[in-house]
Amino acid sequence: MGVERDKVIDFLNSVFKVEEWKDSSMNGLQVEGADEVSGIALGVDACLELFEKAKKENMNFVVVHHGFFWGKVFPISSFWKERFKFLLENDMSLYACHLPMDANPTLGHNATIANRLNLLNISPFGEYHGDYIGFSGEFENELNIEEVKEKLSNLFDYGVRIFKFGKESIKRVGVVSGDAATEDILKECADKNIDLFITGETNHVAYHIIKELKLNVAFCGHYATERFSLFELEKILEEEFNLPVKFFEIPTGM
Amino acid sequence: MGVERDKVIDFLNSVFKVEEWKDSSMNGLQVEGADEVSGIALGVDACLELFEKAKKENMNFVVVHHGFFWGKVFPISSFWKERFKFLLENDMSLYACHLPMDANPTLGHNATIANRLNLLNISPFGEYHGDYIGFSGEFENELNIEEVKEKLSNLFDYGVRIFKFGKESIKRVGVVSGDAATEDILKECADKNIDLFITGETNHVAYHIIKELKLNVAFCGHYATERFSLFELEKILEEEFNLPVKFFEIPTGM
Amino acid sequence: MGVERDKVIDFLNSVFKVEEWKDSSMNGLQVEGADEVSGIALGVDACLELFEKAKKENMNFVVVHHGFFWGKVFPISSFWKERFKFLLENDMSLYACHLPMDANPTLGHNATIANRLNLLNISPFGEYHGDYIGFSGEFENELNIEEVKEKLSNLFDYGVRIFKFGKESIKRVGVVSGDAATEDILKECADKNIDLFITGETNHVAYHIIKELKLNVAFCGHYATERFSLFELEKILEEEFNLPVKFFEIPTGM
Amino acid sequence: MGVERDKVIDFLNSVFKVEEWKDSSMNGLQVEGADEVSGIALGVDACLELFEKAKKENMNFVVVHHGFFWGKVFPISSFWKERFKFLLENDMSLYACHLPMDANPTLGHNATIANRLNLLNISPFGEYHGDYIGFSGEFENELNIEEVKEKLSNLFDYGVRIFKFGKESIKRVGVVSGDAATEDILKECADKNIDLFITGETNHVAYHIIKELKLNVAFCGHYATERFSLFELEKILEEEFNLPVKFFEIPTGM
Amino acid sequence: MGVERDKVIDFLNSVFKVEEWKDSSMNGLQVEGADEVSGIALGVDACLELFEKAKKENMNFVVVHHGFFWGKVFPISSFWKERFKFLLENDMSLYACHLPMDANPTLGHNATIANRLNLLNISPFGEYHGDYIGFSGEFENELNIEEVKEKLSNLFDYGVRIFKFGKESIKRVGVVSGDAATEDILKECADKNIDLFITGETNHVAYHIIKELKLNVAFCGHYATERFSLFELEKILEEEFNLPVKFFEIPTGM
Amino acid sequence: MGVERDKVIDFLNSVFKVEEWKDSSMNGLQVEGADEVSGIALGVDACLELFEKAKKENMNFVVVHHGFFWGKVFPISSFWKERFKFLLENDMSLYACHLPMDANPTLGHNATIANRLNLLNISPFGEYHGDYIGFSGEFENELNIEEVKEKLSNLFDYGVRIFKFGKESIKRVGVVSGDAATEDILKECADKNIDLFITGETNHVAYHIIKELKLNVAFCGHYATERFSLFELEKILEEEFNLPVKFFEIPTGM
Repeated sequence: MGVERDKVIDFLNSVFKVEEWKDSSMNGLQVEGADEVSGIALGVDACLELFEKAKKENMNFVVVHHGFFWGKVFPISSFWKERFKFLLENDMSLYACHLPMDANPTLGHNATIANRLNLLNISPFGEYHGDYIGFSGEFENELNIEEVKEKLSNLFDYGVRIFKFGKESIKRVGVVSGDAATEDILKECADKNIDLFITGETNHVAYHIIKELKLNVAFCGHYATERFSLFELEKILEEEFNLPVKFFEIPTGM
Repeated sequence: MGVERDKVIDFLNSVFKVEEWKDSSMNGLQVEGADEVSGIALGVDACLELFEKAKKENMNFVVVHHGFFWGKVFPISSFWKERFKFLLENDMSLYACHLPMDANPTLGHNATIANRLNLLNISPFGEYHGDYIGFSGEFENELNIEEVKEKLSNLFDYGVRIFKFGKESIKRVGVVSGDAATEDILKECADKNIDLFITGETNHVAYHIIKELKLNVAFCGHYATERFSLFELEKILEEEFNLPVKFFEIPTGM
Repeated sequence: MGVERDKVIDFLNSVFKVEEWKDSSMNGLQVEGADEVSGIALGVDACLELFEKAKKENMNFVVVHHGFFWGKVFPISSFWKERFKFLLENDMSLYACHLPMDANPTLGHNATIANRLNLLNISPFGEYHGDYIGFSGEFENELNIEEVKEKLSNLFDYGVRIFKFGKESIKRVGVVSGDAATEDILKECADKNIDLFITGETNHVAYHIIKELKLNVAFCGHYATERFSLFELEKILEEEFNLPVKFFEIPTGM
Repeated sequence: MGVERDKVIDFLNSVFKVEEWKDSSMNGLQVEGADEVSGIALGVDACLELFEKAKKENMNFVVVHHGFFWGKVFPISSFWKERFKFLLENDMSLYACHLPMDANPTLGHNATIANRLNLLNISPFGEYHGDYIGFSGEFENELNIEEVKEKLSNLFDYGVRIFKFGKESIKRVGVVSGDAATEDILKECADKNIDLFITGETNHVAYHIIKELKLNVAFCGHYATERFSLFELEKILEEEFNLPVKFFEIPTGM
Repeated sequence: MGVERDKVIDFLNSVFKVEEWKDSSMNGLQVEGADEVSGIALGVDACLELFEKAKKENMNFVVVHHGFFWGKVFPISSFWKERFKFLLENDMSLYACHLPMDANPTLGHNATIANRLNLLNISPFGEYHGDYIGFSGEFENELNIEEVKEKLSNLFDYGVRIFKFGKESIKRVGVVSGDAATEDILKECADKNIDLFITGETNHVAYHIIKELKLNVAFCGHYATERFSLFELEKILEEEFNLPVKFFEIPTGM
Repeated sequence: MGVERDKVIDFLNSVFKVEEWKDSSMNGLQVEGADEVSGIALGVDACLELFEKAKKENMNFVVVHHGFFWGKVFPISSFWKERFKFLLENDMSLYACHLPMDANPTLGHNATIANRLNLLNISPFGEYHGDYIGFSGEFENELNIEEVKEKLSNLFDYGVRIFKFGKESIKRVGVVSGDAATEDILKECADKNIDLFITGETNHVAYHIIKELKLNVAFCGHYATERFSLFELEKILEEEFNLPVKFFEIPTGM
């Protein structure tokens, strides 16, 4: 016997406090599937491959970090047609959760990364449109940057690339998952004396800012940094509902 | 053998000069169906009943005046789920055309109505966001308003209601289909000495304006006034493509 | 002896908590008349006929639900000229109150309608731009929809039209005066299992939504549903000020 | 016998090419008076004193540079009430023309000033929201700045104040009526080597810009610089219509 | 030995509660100079002359009421180039504080002016974008307007000009520094029965409003009214930091 | 002897038709240096290292693709302080040219890349805010994708990464420099049957779109693809002005 779809939605809305966030993503239910949930599939991106994998394992409720709707209307054609068609034909729900999943203080991507790095003195970090979406913290002892790189390589499966324009010895780090090497957050790193900033995706525009601010920035992958909340969610959803729950990894290499 | 979907789209785009219009409606293809068109269904509103009727007659390309997308994002749930699901499962296309279908000078709703009333001295009328979407013209001879009401009752199948605050004798009329009794268009009626304004849907706010401007306004139904371009389109599409084409009437009574 | 105009304004502002609402209507004093109020005329719409009737009974302060100013500038010509001229020449004030008059929990249109229908378990309903402007509630016992129609016909003087796509037996109803059959509020009806939605004005666009959501909607007239707060206000103003107060009915038939 | 009001409006609209301008002022008819025009009063500002003077000389059509409507809605109370009341009670029209009256190449304020100073090699000057609203030109011979001040004092009746941070010898001048010592126009002066900039009203913010750009700026009065088009208009309207026309001077001292 | 630049910034931010204000001015640090502050120069306007005077007295932190940035990007050329160059070459900081310096209840321009006039019953006055930026208060006894003018002439060094359309006897006054004779504030004067409104700069548009509202308005100079917070700040900064502090007067005559 | 700075600016403005483009970049002169140009330095990014290199070779006019101003105001602090200070202290100009440098049909980045790949049947490609900023074209003969990769590796110095979800055999390619793998341009690739899309920077969000659209996309580096117009400009500027001109390579690795 399954669980009511609306119960799963209410649980997720309340875990992530979805109502409290302004976001270009339409967080919450994006596509409505069957009333009964047969299993919950988790993934970073709302892509066809994820839906197919979920279907194969008989899961009809999909939770993603990157959903379909970002504030603009588009025709249901091309690859979009296949995505919508697959979900609707198979009566599958799509639930999306963007900034609230980055920022959640217990099971968000960044809180979880900070946790796994055993950071101490955690505080909100990474201001984005007036809210903090990441965290900063400190290693128990100062570490050489190469030691930190090894730690990161163990945590993030798809490679770590460090832009090293700062000091060798690392104590205080900031963590913001995804594509967060923006001018504002890099300046926040400098203002707050962050020895190493850990984020996901590289970008050209940030290069000279990092260099001129004399920062260290570790790019650990957009995909790789945005899996952590899903690991946590997998556990929580299993506990809450008597249902199969599975995180499907579909790395993009970025 | 069918016709290529993109040929039908290109034909419609060019007939209605869709690119030239600013509209809150996303005119053009809204949902992409099969590559080959098996038949073209026409309807006023993109509702489930229309899609089911089209399907029953094996038509997989639907053209409507009121489509799905009006500039705002919404979750695919509730009645929307059923509409999208039906189209996508049955590989049916949805093509929408709003203002360009009101305004087209040869086969638009208003040009066609003007034609069927045998109006002379036709000129653009009904300014909406800087464009004219209707037409005005003259009866060959002055007619009593009751005679005009009879003419209108013959043309519009679902009843005619006249607000009569103007003169009895009618020569010059304006025609704008749908819900067009706006303050701007009513003032345009007064400025241009329109003896009778013919439009679709009644609305409370217009009542006192009509009265104080001493106008005559014939409300002939939102649905009823927005069928005429589809009658014309039916003929043109049959000529152009070797395909079954059919206009499905689903009146709303409004 | 009259009452100071500014006292009447302050009283109305405070009764309706006008400052707390965002509204396209400029709520509050729109046209300033004599310093002393000789009588208060109430009406749904700020039309010339209302002003003339008020004048005839020597009332120089007019309160309406639909005023003159809705956020856009317009030339003082055509019917507007007559309206402004009449008020200014006769030193009459115009006070408008739109959303706060729909939504007021004790004397608003919707609270009053809910009251007169003897609804129980009243709660806010009808979200509009982030605020609730109506109410929902329950009949003491389930009623057949035809019984409800009779009740409504007794309450609303200008006819009731029901779109009946839902169930026969009615317990929970939602009430939003005016032109409120919007997609958002209709979805709210479905989400909250409203057996019958009571509103004012019909509209073409809502028809298929109502049908596909399998709702019952009673259209009781835009004008007819927006009189109730004025009935209440009449009593309250009489109590508060020692002045003639009168609600002038000028139905639009819509 | 009078002239039709709409003929006067059409004439003014066409003389000033009102339709071609974007302006925060609602140019054209702002308040509609009697159908027949008995006389045309001209003034810089739409103030009560102007309306009273016009009325006294039996003129019911008022043309101003600064009208009532600048894009925002306001209650008709306080001094506004008196202004509207006077016009409406006396069946007087108000016609406003702002930027088109500054910029008109033959009878605009700036073209006329340039003319009266006998400037040669006239070209458009003074960019404002993408359009030029003034003119620049040259004296036949270089003049000492004191000689120019004398010329200006003869032309502008209410005093001339010069900020002298540029050179003594003046050949090329720029003219923009009103409150035009903006950063953009002052920079344009520097870029185009304007020896003296002639404008209306002083302002604190401009002081250091003028000083650091080493410009000469003659402040000749907001009111005083915005009378010139009205002098011209007076002649043209008299020629065109067989009506009394009069420019009423109501200087503000600024 | 100097003081850390960021300590001075934090002190100013907290004194003026800079974070709590919406302002077109970018309040706070606008140009970053040396880490150690050698002296603090105060001025009304961020002009080159001020920077040069500060430099001469070996002060490298400049506080102004009118800074460089008002929400729009501009090329660093012309006079801007010289201003930026001077600051950057000399490692000087520029700190700007606009509305919070007008409005501060203890050391703002308007509170200080009210203080020096010995006003009683002080309350917030002068609404601007939803906040009060000035104050109103009462003289202990009614004064003749000529007596008040003398008081004002003693307080404001660069001349006082009174538009006298109100009563002779003055008790209640409103104070808003700078260019504050706007329609909204003038109406507030009338509504609140302000006998005399004290502000800085004259403007043409206000003339007829003042006249028709029958107000008295004293124009005491834009510059002259915006020095008072700097007098106060001079004392406070001297107390707080062991540094040379000096207010440099560079009057604009407006 | 140098060349007048304004002549160089005029030349660049006219070569790139800077006035015709809407761009978030403030194209044209951003920082004004000496009146005489001693040499022209070209670079992709307006970074400190570029300015230092230019200075070392005595060049005081810098042309970049990515300048300082993108529509938002920011404090001149942190790394910005150093950049502005260096330019202003050394009297160096900064000229920026963004979209016009991507899109120019003869010497733009994309036209030049198309040229160097010997593409035939060139046409505009890559719609961005209503304008095409890139080009598409065809190889003379179909090539295997590995052959194309080799060609690209010869052209772009910092590595080529291909996402290969399309066909093996390549004839028609699209070229848009920088960070152009947006949903809109990827759909344009699919619609126009582009066998291989050549762009600069990878991004996570594009991965699944590329995969589901079955496209081939070659990511050749943001920096690497945005050098080509500078190679061309180097030649043209040398011809036009008798000045040292040099393109300084400062690769970001992205």
